[in-house]
Amino acid sequence: MSERTLPPAAGLRTHYIGALDESLLDRDVSVCGWVARIREHGEHLVFVDVRDHTGTVQCVMDGRGSLHTEAAVRIEGQVARRPEGTENTDLATGAIELRVQHAEVLGDADPLPLPLDEHAEVEETTRLRWRYLDLRRARMQRNLRARAATNAAIRRAMEAQGFVEVETPLLWTPTPEGAREFLVPSRTQPGSVYSLPQSPQIAKQLLMIGGVDRYYQIARCLRDEDLRADRQFEFTQLDLEASFVTQEDVRSFVSAAIREVIRSVRGVDDVPIGTITWHEAMTRWGSDKPDRRFGMELVDVTEAVRDSGARALAADYVTALVVAEPLSRSRLDELTQRARSAGAKGLAWFRVESRTPLEIASPLAKAMTPAALEALVERTGAEVGDTILVVADRFEVACTALGTIRLALGRHLADPDALDVFWVIDFPLFEGVDDEGHLVSAHHPFTMPHADDMDLLEREPLRVRSQSYDLVMNGWELGSGSIRIHRPDLQAQIFGLLGLDEQAAADRFGFLLDAFRFGPPPHGGFAFGIDRLVALLLGEETIREVIAFPKTQSGQDPMTGAPKPVDDGVLAALGLEARRRELRSGTR
Amino acid sequence: MSERTLPPAAGLRTHYIGALDESLLDRDVSVCGWVARIREHGEHLVFVDVRDHTGTVQCVMDGRGSLHTEAAVRIEGQVARRPEGTENTDLATGAIELRVQHAEVLGDADPLPLPLDEHAEVEETTRLRWRYLDLRRARMQRNLRARAATNAAIRRAMEAQGFVEVETPLLWTPTPEGAREFLVPSRTQPGSVYSLPQSPQIAKQLLMIGGVDRYYQIARCLRDEDLRADRQFEFTQLDLEASFVTQEDVRSFVSAAIREVIRSVRGVDDVPIGTITWHEAMTRWGSDKPDRRFGMELVDVTEAVRDSGARALAADYVTALVVAEPLSRSRLDELTQRARSAGAKGLAWFRVESRTPLEIASPLAKAMTPAALEALVERTGAEVGDTILVVADRFEVACTALGTIRLALGRHLADPDALDVFWVIDFPLFEGVDDEGHLVSAHHPFTMPHADDMDLLEREPLRVRSQSYDLVMNGWELGSGSIRIHRPDLQAQIFGLLGLDEQAAADRFGFLLDAFRFGPPPHGGFAFGIDRLVALLLGEETIREVIAFPKTQSGQDPMTGAPKPVDDGVLAALGLEARRRELRSGTR
Repeated sequence: MSERTLPPAAGLRTHYIGALDESLLDRDVSVCGWVARIREHGEHLVFVDVRDHTGTVQCVMDGRGSLHTEAAVRIEGQVARRPEGTENTDLATGAIELRVQHAEVLGDADPLPLPLDEHAEVEETTRLRWRYLDLRRARMQRNLRARAATNAAIRRAMEAQGFVEVETPLLWTPTPEGAREFLVPSRTQPGSVYSLPQSPQIAKQLLMIGGVDRYYQIARCLRDEDLRADRQFEFTQLDLEASFVTQEDVRSFVSAAIREVIRSVRGVDDVPIGTITWHEAMTRWGSDKPDRRFGMELVDVTEAVRDSGARALAADYVTALVVAEPLSRSRLDELTQRARSAGAKGLAWFRVESRTPLEIASPLAKAMTPAALEALVERTGAEVGDTILVVADRFEVACTALGTIRLALGRHLADPDALDVFWVIDFPLFEGVDDEGHLVSAHHPFTMPHADDMDLLEREPLRVRSQSYDLVMNGWELGSGSIRIHRPDLQAQIFGLLGLDEQAAADRFGFLLDAFRFGPPPHGGFAFGIDRLVALLLGEETIREVIAFPKTQSGQDPMTGAPKPVDDGVLAALGLEARRRELRSGTR
Repeated sequence: MSERTLPPAAGLRTHYIGALDESLLDRDVSVCGWVARIREHGEHLVFVDVRDHTGTVQCVMDGRGSLHTEAAVRIEGQVARRPEGTENTDLATGAIELRVQHAEVLGDADPLPLPLDEHAEVEETTRLRWRYLDLRRARMQRNLRARAATNAAIRRAMEAQGFVEVETPLLWTPTPEGAREFLVPSRTQPGSVYSLPQSPQIAKQLLMIGGVDRYYQIARCLRDEDLRADRQFEFTQLDLEASFVTQEDVRSFVSAAIREVIRSVRGVDDVPIGTITWHEAMTRWGSDKPDRRFGMELVDVTEAVRDSGARALAADYVTALVVAEPLSRSRLDELTQRARSAGAKGLAWFRVESRTPLEIASPLAKAMTPAALEALVERTGAEVGDTILVVADRFEVACTALGTIRLALGRHLADPDALDVFWVIDFPLFEGVDDEGHLVSAHHPFTMPHADDMDLLEREPLRVRSQSYDLVMNGWELGSGSIRIHRPDLQAQIFGLLGLDEQAAADRFGFLLDAFRFGPPPHGGFAFGIDRLVALLLGEETIREVIAFPKTQSGQDPMTGAPKPVDDGVLAALGLEARRRELRSGTR
């Protein structure tokens, strides 16, 4: 963190340890903390490192007394300069030591069940089982404090922009299908349930109709979903919504918050936050959340290989990637498999053996016209020794497949300290057509179509862009937002295209649609995940490293034992009982 | 609110309405908001009041066009001085008006299902059914914004004191008895449940063991309890905990936060926050959360009536209240009933008919010695015409009963604008003895006994004071806290006095007790309810007025319809089914 201010000391200490330096020489001070290390020198002299969250200081004592490692202690002593040659430059307090006058054990410690050494390899389940000890490590202290600084920076930025914090309910109403929602049974209405909100989406749109104008909240959201992809059942997001604004306004609000966070956590002022279209993101990097920290851009070779003669290259869109390293046959097979997993029919490759005359090694080379091969090399700029990887398919499939390969080949080139933050805009409104011939929303069904594309809605709906926008950092989607539809007639038209009849729409979104009858303002908003943002800024691999008490990837808490079985009597009070028969016979 | 800064305008408006004044004369501006009122003057001239959350402005148009009340509109116009004599001094913008060049309906409005007039009497259920419209009223806008200002002030104060915000889990572990907890069934472990936290008490103590040093959180808590006493299932509290501190330190941290809130919401600087003991609070006001905004203090007359001759006055403690107003027989009967409801055996009364010679009208007068009567009048300072009300009982019962009567007779004397904030300290550690002869904790079993009373623990435990403290405002307990026991040996002793054996303690508090084996720091904390604080500061009668989307007193949300019945298939996925048979036969 760029800022490092120590809190005012109080209580049992005169100073936080991080405040001890040569300006206090000969002063009597008292500090509180934990015994980090005990080293006995000779018969009597003992060096005890005492640690609080601000630092560690060496305390010199006559005999170790009853001190144990990780006991909570209070030390009274005199600040002294260390003997020449024994200074420790690794330590902020390394020029001084405390000559102990009095050492008091405030809370004794049994031997610890896990080492707190930063470099010790400890299984994550063990760390989570003893999380309260794991939190004593400097890295976890840094992470929790950086997270708090992130929240504070966000609030500062939002409030400076006139946003008002409103707390929305945790006990919300269940949706008809109840998928991915956590449910909370009611005791006053046995058999009925509340749901925990997956996001305050509907509540915040109602706040706009209620005239709140600019709302924000650092909101806890809960989603009962697969945790494998580094997710948690509960997560925290900055949630915001504003009325009478354009999508540029919303992006500007969010950019200000992100800049304030980066300033606060990484010490970088005014980080640039650019904007690219979805089409550009797909074309150049093969992803709607591209990692632009390394090159290896894709190249549109559709024209170059038109009428090439190779049937494998006859497609809507053909995209190419030049790889400078030699690729073995097995590597190429593996990459082909990746392209197929991403939905493409296959992966073509072309190795440039010589330039003049042009010699290409490729399974397709024989089938192709020399002109097409020449155009392919020309267009991609490939040189001798390079391999050109090509995917031909529908635009999205081709780009996504080759984008996946780009990441697999290039992500190690990305500078881990770089910060690349930008907006992706102009997403398609619909992502495709379902089995029944209905369009499918790319975001959610309240997303406003692009103003310039309204006349395409009925004619060429798949070409309609939406007024939605994602914020991307280092190849991760931090969050997304949109301008919402606020006109009932337009909403009805979109529901129609999605194949939702009036009754189905009313069942799902009833009271929100109702609200739109009473003077809805134009509005739009955004939400981004704070867990991921903090993890990215700190270079942590998983969001569990920036959460005080996370669950494991199977949703359990090894510290508390949650979730736990519950007595029949408790369930009965909720109008429920366990489905014993099915459970016994193994049906789940 | 003392501060009134307008957010920077953006999007479809050049100005918020509250920013319009004579400095903008002749300027073209655009504003957005809702049509508050339409008045037609003659054939063409129409005055339209347009409102946003910052103010209302009169817009002058030729014809009303398609404007409806409460439609969302955008108005372009020129700022003009109102014709002399037509200024409206009730309105901040009352010196000017907008000459409309262009009026655009952004969101049309059907006729509203409830009036938004501040003075209209609307049933609360109707207001909650259409809460998103109710929120447009100036009062609700003020309340939500004052609440946001409260949260911001709290965070400012806590962070200035070195507290770090840590988010603790919502999906927590259920307690063995599960009383008053909301449960969340797990889909990955059907039949098992998480619980929603009634407070982050255990989590924050674990953070102290984890070295966080000073923790705070504006935490959502959930308690499945009776809602009649103006409570909600979910509520928000400032939750804090600090290590290596004394109770004075904790009170000072909280006082700073409360002062910052009062400064921000009421514009009062440095409100004094005194401290009284529980004993003084009970003796003088007959309550552990006294309303001191009016006099009518109780008087200890135990000595005065000792050996008075009246058996009704023979008790541990006798307390008196002088009432200047005449009390009818039926009023006295009613007050006697109140005393009995509060647990007292009865209420004695003495009317001073004459002073010299002393003449007292009272059912007890004949049984009493003249000396006792004289001493009673002398001690209370009662004058001719006054009535002395007396309760004789155990100390707590006598004080509480007469304190209830004091409130009933005097609360209307309290200045509603006054702010009386103070600490009550030195509570008894135990509130009594249960049927099995075990002591009962007054707060919770982790509360540290007073350092001076440790030797009374085994000898006279009911005389032991605790290191706990309540914060009281205008007769409401805002919150409470304590220094916690951090030594396992003392905790075991207290569990013993409470009749909790080791196994029972482990079942209830297992992983917390475990944590205390590994260098627990001395620590203490506090929590206060933000809903109540904001309601008190705004003079609102119920906390529902300061919550965006509250539940009714039966726990329902008339807007969303929550809670709702849920499909059997959804329950089955959670390993549950409805208890249909019992429900049908009416058993609950």
